[in-house]
Amino acid sequence: MVRGRISRLLVRDVRFPTSLGGHGSDAMHADPDYSAAYVVIETDAEDGLKGYGITFTLGKGTEVVVCAVNALAHHVLNKDLKDIVGDFRGFYRQLASDGQLRWLGPEKGVVHLATAAILNAVWDLWAKQEGKPVWKLLVDMDPRMLVSCIDFRYITDVLTEEDALEILQKGQVGKREREEQMLAQGYPAYTTSCAWLGYSDDTLKQVVTALQQGWLRADLPVKNLFLQMMDANQRWDVPEAVEWMSKLAKFKPLWIEEPTSPDDILGHATISKALVPLGIGVATGEQCHNRVIFKQLLQAKALQFLQIDSCRLGSINENLSVLLMAKKFEIPVCPHAGGVGLCELVQHLIIFDYISVSASLKNRMCEYVDHLHEHFKYPVMIQQASYMPPKDAGYSTEMKEESVKKHQYPDGDVWKKLLAAQEN
Amino acid sequence: MVRGRISRLLVRDVRFPTSLGGHGSDAMHADPDYSAAYVVIETDAEDGLKGYGITFTLGKGTEVVVCAVNALAHHVLNKDLKDIVGDFRGFYRQLASDGQLRWLGPEKGVVHLATAAILNAVWDLWAKQEGKPVWKLLVDMDPRMLVSCIDFRYITDVLTEEDALEILQKGQVGKREREEQMLAQGYPAYTTSCAWLGYSDDTLKQVVTALQQGWLRADLPVKNLFLQMMDANQRWDVPEAVEWMSKLAKFKPLWIEEPTSPDDILGHATISKALVPLGIGVATGEQCHNRVIFKQLLQAKALQFLQIDSCRLGSINENLSVLLMAKKFEIPVCPHAGGVGLCELVQHLIIFDYISVSASLKNRMCEYVDHLHEHFKYPVMIQQASYMPPKDAGYSTEMKEESVKKHQYPDGDVWKKLLAAQEN
Repeated sequence: MVRGRISRLLVRDVRFPTSLGGHGSDAMHADPDYSAAYVVIETDAEDGLKGYGITFTLGKGTEVVVCAVNALAHHVLNKDLKDIVGDFRGFYRQLASDGQLRWLGPEKGVVHLATAAILNAVWDLWAKQEGKPVWKLLVDMDPRMLVSCIDFRYITDVLTEEDALEILQKGQVGKREREEQMLAQGYPAYTTSCAWLGYSDDTLKQVVTALQQGWLRADLPVKNLFLQMMDANQRWDVPEAVEWMSKLAKFKPLWIEEPTSPDDILGHATISKALVPLGIGVATGEQCHNRVIFKQLLQAKALQFLQIDSCRLGSINENLSVLLMAKKFEIPVCPHAGGVGLCELVQHLIIFDYISVSASLKNRMCEYVDHLHEHFKYPVMIQQASYMPPKDAGYSTEMKEESVKKHQYPDGDVWKKLLAAQEN
Repeated sequence: MVRGRISRLLVRDVRFPTSLGGHGSDAMHADPDYSAAYVVIETDAEDGLKGYGITFTLGKGTEVVVCAVNALAHHVLNKDLKDIVGDFRGFYRQLASDGQLRWLGPEKGVVHLATAAILNAVWDLWAKQEGKPVWKLLVDMDPRMLVSCIDFRYITDVLTEEDALEILQKGQVGKREREEQMLAQGYPAYTTSCAWLGYSDDTLKQVVTALQQGWLRADLPVKNLFLQMMDANQRWDVPEAVEWMSKLAKFKPLWIEEPTSPDDILGHATISKALVPLGIGVATGEQCHNRVIFKQLLQAKALQFLQIDSCRLGSINENLSVLLMAKKFEIPVCPHAGGVGLCELVQHLIIFDYISVSASLKNRMCEYVDHLHEHFKYPVMIQQASYMPPKDAGYSTEMKEESVKKHQYPDGDVWKKLLAAQEN
């Protein structure tokens, strides 16, 4: 089935001027312009199919990720797609452990984001060639093949290849029923596009109205909808997080998200230990940079909700390992989404997680933000506050060419105008 | 004293083709070309002084760091140097927490390396204006001023500003004697330029001869000189590290360096717990990306030797916080050096550490590698296997313009020739 040799890799810097509307603003990121390094790969096969991959950025620095994609491109060019996916673990490691580029990480920061963008494009292409959406490609894949996509380096003290295989084989039981359930009902979502720090009171009121119209999950009254989760965006040190959340416990939040540095495993463990008795869970993950961090957060009982990100970890390959570790520790995965395309991508992972790994919806939901979907060729479908499984082949990563052209930085029309206005 | 407004920031991509000789090759980095992103800042002051800063890289990807330096440059340009050093904590945080660039880290990977290069240039310029080598600038600095350079965010559960001040004030006692001792005897060094993985047997023999001629520290017989430390370069998973080192314990290594992923705090703790009873310490740090990681390694008793790196952490500002935390836990600091300029820079930190913080040489030494010093204007001075305190003003970061020109990538003479040869 898999065919063609990668003949071209193109990467573009696409930015949406969201800071003008205060969208996405939080305590640590005051003025994000939601952006993406957008990778397109082509093959010499006659089918004309292309693979599209993104990693999410906040504006400035997208050009740095673009530069890193170009530095990694030689690992992809002139490779047969069948050789890549036939030894996907090896290919992952080649990208993530390039003998010279590795020093700039390893497996973190700009180079890892670039790795994610490239691998996302490879998965999109693979799924398109198979004629399936990525979630379905994963659900139908033999457990041994799935396991062969994962680099177990640095996690075998918690998850070996054998452990992974066992989990996936158990996940085969009831798989068909869960797939039907997903197709009928979708995966539960929750929205966070309601309370960005930069929003005015008027905007907040509009948001409340919108929520009342369509976004109330039946089990959540409005006051809880706002209060159920709190997000600190890494603002606190460990003692502050414990102190503040102890005071806020009376509002019964389900979780406190990103209470401190995403690198602070022991800090999250201390916070969890203090807050779990108060009924508050700790959630983190959107800025946790690789599987080694998630492994430790699980080992240290440092979180109660695990928030994977489809564009920060090394694509599906690394996310698979995190989903499996979360299953082993029985910690619910509640993905981070929003930004540019994060909803489009992560829905595939969480639907696969339910069907083939977790087999549970308890305490689980996937973030949803209603921004920028209009720029995607296959935007997410939300029905009754649930992500409906995508039906188009691929990873839902392809953007509309018109949108890309207009928002390319700095020479797209949108930016030409904004930059000219800034100069005046 | 401090004067001028930063009027220009220039960054260059300088690479030495060390992979041709196998220098620096190890289990994870087979073919490094020792390189640097080299930052030069100028002011509008009439003294004509410039600040030079580097971060170390391994060849490919230096252009990505250069790109990140340019993305950060607007934080530096048109700032008064006195405003920068007058609120150095604020300036550090501005660079490390740029609302848009932060997403690409935070405080890790390419953007943090770029931050280090810029801050290193600022420290070089400051010390030059004061007419002192950096170590002396630090030693003479009032403890309150030193503390004002440190961003304590995310480490106050281990080290508060008050703790830091107390340590530094205690360090004033006996300072003058220790400074005299350093000036007379220098700081103990050990060399690792003897056993790169890519070296032939002949090269190894030459190295042994060289070592016998000048590098024998009196207390170390030759067989121990080779055996005293082992370096795994992150090759192992946690169970492998314990298994291999238990077998190698009979050789009585002082430490095992980088036994596994630099992100794996709990893994290092497990390894330490298994090896310390066998008389083997764990050393790590050259790829630990920020103070939050070092904080946890100390909290978890995960290392017995702490290896700071002058170009990976956020320059002197962040290294100060790590030196102080190490002092609090009484863990010896044995810096990583080698590469391009790492010896030149880190000698300032470790000499300051001895005079003003640790006040001890027990179990302490600083790595030394005899490569590429000839390209620096103020190269390290080694006498009797010790780093002699630099006397020239600045951070010893300035390279010879002729070397930079020749090794600039890809248009310096050295690379023009090599790249042309590759094409033939």
